[in-house]
Amino acid sequence: MLSAVKRVLIGRPLKSKELGEQRLSKTKALAVLSSDALSSVAYGPEQVLIVLATVSTIAFWYSIPIAVGVLILLAALILSYRQVIFAYPHGGGAYVVSKENLGENPGLVAGGSLLVDYILTVAVSVSSGTDALTSAFPSLLHYNVIIACCLVVVITLLNLRGLTESATILAYPVYLFVLALFILFGVGLYHILTGHVPANHHSALGTPVAGIGLFLLLKAFASGCSALTGVEAISNAIPNFKKPEPVNAAKTLIAMGGLLAVLFVGIVYLAYYYGVAPKATETVVSQIARETFGRNFVYFFIQGTTALILVLAANTGFSAFPMLAVNLAKDKYIARMFTIRGDRLGYSNGIIALAVASILLIIGFKGKTESLIPLYAVGVFIPFTLAQTGMFLKWIREKPPGWVAKLITNLIGAIISGTVMMMFFITKFTQVWPVLIFLPILVLVFHRIKRHYIKVGKQLSLANCEQLKPIQGNIIIVPVAGMTHVVENSLNYAKSLRPDQIIAVYVAFEREDEKVFEEKWKKWQPDVRLVTLQSYYRSIIHPLMKFIDTVEHKASESNYNVTVMIPQFIPRKRWQNILHNQTSLLIRAFLISRKNVVISTVPFHLRE
Amino acid sequence: MLSAVKRVLIGRPLKSKELGEQRLSKTKALAVLSSDALSSVAYGPEQVLIVLATVSTIAFWYSIPIAVGVLILLAALILSYRQVIFAYPHGGGAYVVSKENLGENPGLVAGGSLLVDYILTVAVSVSSGTDALTSAFPSLLHYNVIIACCLVVVITLLNLRGLTESATILAYPVYLFVLALFILFGVGLYHILTGHVPANHHSALGTPVAGIGLFLLLKAFASGCSALTGVEAISNAIPNFKKPEPVNAAKTLIAMGGLLAVLFVGIVYLAYYYGVAPKATETVVSQIARETFGRNFVYFFIQGTTALILVLAANTGFSAFPMLAVNLAKDKYIARMFTIRGDRLGYSNGIIALAVASILLIIGFKGKTESLIPLYAVGVFIPFTLAQTGMFLKWIREKPPGWVAKLITNLIGAIISGTVMMMFFITKFTQVWPVLIFLPILVLVFHRIKRHYIKVGKQLSLANCEQLKPIQGNIIIVPVAGMTHVVENSLNYAKSLRPDQIIAVYVAFEREDEKVFEEKWKKWQPDVRLVTLQSYYRSIIHPLMKFIDTVEHKASESNYNVTVMIPQFIPRKRWQNILHNQTSLLIRAFLISRKNVVISTVPFHLRE
Repeated sequence: MLSAVKRVLIGRPLKSKELGEQRLSKTKALAVLSSDALSSVAYGPEQVLIVLATVSTIAFWYSIPIAVGVLILLAALILSYRQVIFAYPHGGGAYVVSKENLGENPGLVAGGSLLVDYILTVAVSVSSGTDALTSAFPSLLHYNVIIACCLVVVITLLNLRGLTESATILAYPVYLFVLALFILFGVGLYHILTGHVPANHHSALGTPVAGIGLFLLLKAFASGCSALTGVEAISNAIPNFKKPEPVNAAKTLIAMGGLLAVLFVGIVYLAYYYGVAPKATETVVSQIARETFGRNFVYFFIQGTTALILVLAANTGFSAFPMLAVNLAKDKYIARMFTIRGDRLGYSNGIIALAVASILLIIGFKGKTESLIPLYAVGVFIPFTLAQTGMFLKWIREKPPGWVAKLITNLIGAIISGTVMMMFFITKFTQVWPVLIFLPILVLVFHRIKRHYIKVGKQLSLANCEQLKPIQGNIIIVPVAGMTHVVENSLNYAKSLRPDQIIAVYVAFEREDEKVFEEKWKKWQPDVRLVTLQSYYRSIIHPLMKFIDTVEHKASESNYNVTVMIPQFIPRKRWQNILHNQTSLLIRAFLISRKNVVISTVPFHLRE
Repeated sequence: MLSAVKRVLIGRPLKSKELGEQRLSKTKALAVLSSDALSSVAYGPEQVLIVLATVSTIAFWYSIPIAVGVLILLAALILSYRQVIFAYPHGGGAYVVSKENLGENPGLVAGGSLLVDYILTVAVSVSSGTDALTSAFPSLLHYNVIIACCLVVVITLLNLRGLTESATILAYPVYLFVLALFILFGVGLYHILTGHVPANHHSALGTPVAGIGLFLLLKAFASGCSALTGVEAISNAIPNFKKPEPVNAAKTLIAMGGLLAVLFVGIVYLAYYYGVAPKATETVVSQIARETFGRNFVYFFIQGTTALILVLAANTGFSAFPMLAVNLAKDKYIARMFTIRGDRLGYSNGIIALAVASILLIIGFKGKTESLIPLYAVGVFIPFTLAQTGMFLKWIREKPPGWVAKLITNLIGAIISGTVMMMFFITKFTQVWPVLIFLPILVLVFHRIKRHYIKVGKQLSLANCEQLKPIQGNIIIVPVAGMTHVVENSLNYAKSLRPDQIIAVYVAFEREDEKVFEEKWKKWQPDVRLVTLQSYYRSIIHPLMKFIDTVEHKASESNYNVTVMIPQFIPRKRWQNILHNQTSLLIRAFLISRKNVVISTVPFHLRE
């Protein structure tokens, strides 16, 4: 039943051979992996204006030089990540780069902050998409948490179906969004050039503004840089591309950078020329679109695709998180299960872990995840800075042909990213301090897990030539609750193994009961030794464990092995289990972690 | 660690012999078992006035004759349940009476509605107590669900500590509440007799009222009868009394009836004489107390003890529910685990089940459980009616000395209870209809469970002489994931049992891997047969299950037994389990319900 539901939801299992068919073409990869970056143009320019508005609307002209700064950083990041792609074609992005060039801990800081960041991406983007929906249909307002969770589930299912299928579906909204903004820019520019827009709505470039300082400009710049979140995603997901992976990934990266630049500049320019001021009730993009088209069909098309791409930004997280988790798991920093491909060849454990974590965040913050945005931006610029610095050191160390140009690219990237990161910490410390707590904890956990895996590996390895205890004989203990066919079945099995000794153990609550049982037993199983234990406290577990301890202690002296054989009847229907078997489950749970005994469950299947 | 916490919370385990010391004296039993009934005088009279107020305040004088009606019903119920106590001294109350005299299904209806009713009692009384608290301290308003849940947990812990301990603590508030109301009545009467209360605040008895009819009076009467909920609790909990149980229980019942009558009449009379009208913002008891004392210390004492007893009404549920569950479980209508006494000799499974169910109700209704009150009242009057009718038939059938008087008592009780029940259904159908759905479902579930237990009993019984399959030999299958000490350990154990055949099974994901593994195996374990299975879909479970099926099918033809031996390493710390062992858990879960094979877990304890 369950597997039928699963098949309907995510499709038939795919053979391992079919992996090649699950690779992404450039157009699909661009859609899936750039939705996060592209969606951020919907709020990045607005963030700049919000900071400038704290001084005066005259200061809005500064958005133009700030946009130039963002473009420079974007160019540095794109060129730099292009170099990362060719240098580390197996993916892993900032994590691998930092680990190889800066050392283990910087690598873990980069990897850890990206892991957390993708969780934040999903929570924040889905919540903001839900907000767009509920502000259009206020009657849904009470259900925003449920709606957001359902959206995460839908995106999760799409990703569990596999990359190509989700990409096919999710590519449309991304390209429609790009198309919508291009139409907006075209018409907007036409209006400006034909003089339809009054030129006195904006202050001229260079107008002096009282009270503006470097700190404020840097803060505005850092806010604008939140539009650059997501540009690292491609470098994490290189193995998802069609062959040759690095070449295709690099081309996709350049295309994304170009698109991002055009969209960012377009919005900043139109906002500046129209003299748009940020409002609490209407987004900057909405204002631009409304002034250009009025509230007609095109306006709603732009608004609709914008809301959609905000939700789909989550999908970038779903593509990049599992790949990053694979890299961390291969290095043993997180549980091995993240390296296992699911039915549809995706790393389903990573996908599900991301979904669960982001749903918990959404529920924990009751769908109001805006306060997480600064955390999310700083969480991106930490790995940016580390990756660039790592590449910079790599070029110094390796000095390949043309290394100076590469070095300069990465140096510029590192300096700007580092500055932005510091700006986030200085200007928004009250919001981003949790990073300073959870990142070290995360790194510590990574180390603990790795240490554990290494220890386990050593103890299991045959290279470790320690001799195992030889087994000289077997003692079988059968806890019995009565004289029934279930017990008979277990005793028959025990006898068939011809151990050195079989001991049936009965825990009695009353003295009289004990005697009655012993007499009956003698008649029923004269050849099986019965031990009865008196329980003064009505616990079956405690007397039994004490007895097993004693037996095991004596047995181990002469290298005998002890097996506890638990008779268990299996009802035909699952729900019936709650009516039985509590004690046998408890016995098993107690034994498995504490005692060095083999635990056998001898099933007796009920026929009705 | 866990058991240390448990010991602090609920105390050291008690020996079964100490059961006698856990019995209740009459004063303690009165406190524990009557808190539900006594607390209902805090809202019963108010319910009557609310119905009468729909006509006119002049109609308030009808509360006096209605109170007389309630007293008659109370007397009939008390006398009748006194007879139940002597006729069925082992407890079980309405359930046992109805089952013995009316048949299985009426018994189950009575038992089922009481079980549900005690859950409602706990949820409703704790929520209303929490409301009293949060209206005194409005800053706590947002936490009302958490506070209510914590209160349930505290009461649960007290009950898990055992009856005597909880009774010792909980007796004070109950007697203080009685004292508080006695002071109120004394001072109130004094004021009236000395003429301090103007006599023109109330309409004289017999004043004609326009628009009042029989239906409305019956509705008011039914509402007033909600003050009688809880009088059945003693009859369910007879075995908790000191010896002689029935005599002590009967005396306690009479005492409770007397107290209840005095408190009910006192409040009704003072409310009538003062001319108190029900208000949304202030309870009737609060109005009476305020008019009598003003807002001084005595007023707050009365209010405080009233709030406290509303919460403690829950405790009656905790005393009666587990006893009723024991009776149902002994008759196999619910899971056997309800008959097991916990560490402190209470029926802890019943206590915990009640706590969980009521917490779920509180959370589900977000602490607003007022809408459940009618459900709860009707749920009490169904067993009242059934029990009285059952007793009536019993007297007709048995005709013991003095049976006519007994018969009349029960007949009157049955008629009035039945009328009240019908009134609830007629006047509050929109609120009580769920009873008509969940009671039949509950009865059906009871039957299903009993049928299952009977079937299981038959199949397990040795009286059923069906021969078990003889075991001619043993085949052991060891799923292996690699060549490690864990596998070696399992193989050593398997060999020590000297079965007819040992088969190691390896699931390979790649063709090459398969060959490499086979070659290495030959060198390592030349005497153990290795079967490698190719998994095209990366599932370990499916190929393994198919293989086990084949082996089992062949083995069963020649009566060979199949054992699947799962190598498992046990990490030193529990959290580390999430990093391993997922596959072995999965294999076990798949095998246990579906296949007729013995499952052995061979532990390999890691030293670090």
